Amino acid sequence: MKKLINSVDTVVTDALTGMAAAHPGALRVDTDQHIVYRAQAKEQGKVAIVSGGGSGHEPLHGGFVGSGMLDAACAGEIFTSPVPDQIVAATAAVDRGAGVLHLVKNYTGDVMNFEMAAEIVAADGIEVASVVTNDDVAVEDSLYTAGRRGVGVTVLAEKIAGAAAEEGQSLAQVAEIATRVNANGRSMGMALTSCTVPANGKPSFDLPDDEMEIGIGIHGEPGRHREKIAPASEIAGRLTEPILAELPAGDGRGVIAFLNGMGASPLLELYLMYGEVAKILGAAGITVERSLVGNYITSLDMAGCSLTLLRADDELLRLWDAPVNTPGLRWGV
Amino acid sequence: MKKLINSVDTVVTDALTGMAAAHPGALRVDTDQHIVYRAQAKEQGKVAIVSGGGSGHEPLHGGFVGSGMLDAACAGEIFTSPVPDQIVAATAAVDRGAGVLHLVKNYTGDVMNFEMAAEIVAADGIEVASVVTNDDVAVEDSLYTAGRRGVGVTVLAEKIAGAAAEEGQSLAQVAEIATRVNANGRSMGMALTSCTVPANGKPSFDLPDDEMEIGIGIHGEPGRHREKIAPASEIAGRLTEPILAELPAGDGRGVIAFLNGMGASPLLELYLMYGEVAKILGAAGITVERSLVGNYITSLDMAGCSLTLLRADDELLRLWDAPVNTPGLRWGV
Repeated sequence: MKKLINSVDTVVTDALTGMAAAHPGALRVDTDQHIVYRAQAKEQGKVAIVSGGGSGHEPLHGGFVGSGMLDAACAGEIFTSPVPDQIVAATAAVDRGAGVLHLVKNYTGDVMNFEMAAEIVAADGIEVASVVTNDDVAVEDSLYTAGRRGVGVTVLAEKIAGAAAEEGQSLAQVAEIATRVNANGRSMGMALTSCTVPANGKPSFDLPDDEMEIGIGIHGEPGRHREKIAPASEIAGRLTEPILAELPAGDGRGVIAFLNGMGASPLLELYLMYGEVAKILGAAGITVERSLVGNYITSLDMAGCSLTLLRADDELLRLWDAPVNTPGLRWGV
Repeated sequence: MKKLINSVDTVVTDALTGMAAAHPGALRVDTDQHIVYRAQAKEQGKVAIVSGGGSGHEPLHGGFVGSGMLDAACAGEIFTSPVPDQIVAATAAVDRGAGVLHLVKNYTGDVMNFEMAAEIVAADGIEVASVVTNDDVAVEDSLYTAGRRGVGVTVLAEKIAGAAAEEGQSLAQVAEIATRVNANGRSMGMALTSCTVPANGKPSFDLPDDEMEIGIGIHGEPGRHREKIAPASEIAGRLTEPILAELPAGDGRGVIAFLNGMGASPLLELYLMYGEVAKILGAAGITVERSLVGNYITSLDMAGCSLTLLRADDELLRLWDAPVNTPGLRWGV
């Protein structure tokens, strides 16, 4: 196993320590509880948003803490849900009297632990709404989920709901917007190589030198099928077609297209893949209103990519364009 | 070879096509000549900056085209210098009557071709100044250079000189600032794995499963030595110590610390490495004024990282903080 780490036991703590050192003015990192906060809390009376999940998907979620996006992110161990205590602490710390939205990817442990935390803080009078993302069209049910997995749309939901919260929308409104993003977003991923979980010390699965896996999950969970490596243009088709088959109808609306890297694929290849996706969308008569290309929801050192398409109405586009100032996503500020 | 490409012959063109599709409002990409321009040229009377080099280091250089940074970037084939014709075309296109700075990494082919281009445009009355970066302390001379290699400081020079040009400084002033950045910056890299050049189809070098290479170049050129993989804290020392041995004295000035990923190392590990570097700098009494962590000057799919330290005076810090709006680096806008 070749990794830039000190020991398999301290990976998350050490990475959070580095993150704190890299962003001293922007973030406050609780390296004991593994929670990333904004250095400066938002104003009283505004909805706060807490997300979190297993580590190994950076910059998700800690890298999206900041003005216009998350108020706090709870980091579990690698590919392991954060515990209720973390989520309770984060939720209580960021509540500004207007309630807290929990944005949760659909994995059994995450959903359960966020639910437990929501019940606990509710007893203390903190209002919580929860939105669970489940945008991955690859499989129904999987290794770690009942129902679809939550993947790329989570990044878009954090950005768009974050903007709604920042401009002062109510908890019900912010939750409705996150729900709308999830309902209108679909994703599909693929891998060229496995990731290696530090504590395991070896690749999570074997993939022959001339094969790729289509429909992979962000923890290396099995996808739909394996096949020989194909040209990027064909891989783009493998990702785009199943998404389009399930994407809500246009009714005049275009999409936000998000081509995401799994962690070890260089930006050169991600741009190349985006170009192939853009051609397919163009041929299908789908207008790309906005795009995002890069490593945003990763799977440790997996090589590969995922595509997320979000059918976006004018309000979602307006909120997408709103200023955001986080280590992982920044514009308009 | 596992890559998201169509064919080894079309990698650069296809990636530039994708880049154009991803940033239609910000960039204008000449996919025939392999030149990335700003979609909107800067005002008449301001100095323009052209950089470029072999592809495979993305987001460098094309991803740094935009307000506050580069005016154009010439992309060579993978790890191959751009040709004089490209550089001539880019230089002529972006000149706004105040002259053009060529920012060139110290590789023999790059230096030669930028020099040839500068002579050609000079005959047409375009004033060109050239600054060559050579910040890599790993080796004197190397596979592709006479003298030190130009690496991470190039990113900082493009940002800082770009800000000076944007605020209307003269060509001599902008060149002096780029020269100052290079003179006060030092870098050192390491690799856990080799990169694979598409046209070669196999790793550029063999590195045993339990070894790393210290002092690697961004094209997989040999470094200083190989050794058994060590904890991140020790790797941080291997990078930091040789830099500090050659970094100009402080005289009250702190540093910009830039922890760069080689392309296939996930952000989790880059933050972790930055944390270890920050500890060493703290113990050495060196103030980190600003930091940058992520994949900015990469080496295809190489796993590993590099560290750049820049001893920064107040003017360099002010220019670092100035607004920048490029696909690869964005703040203040």
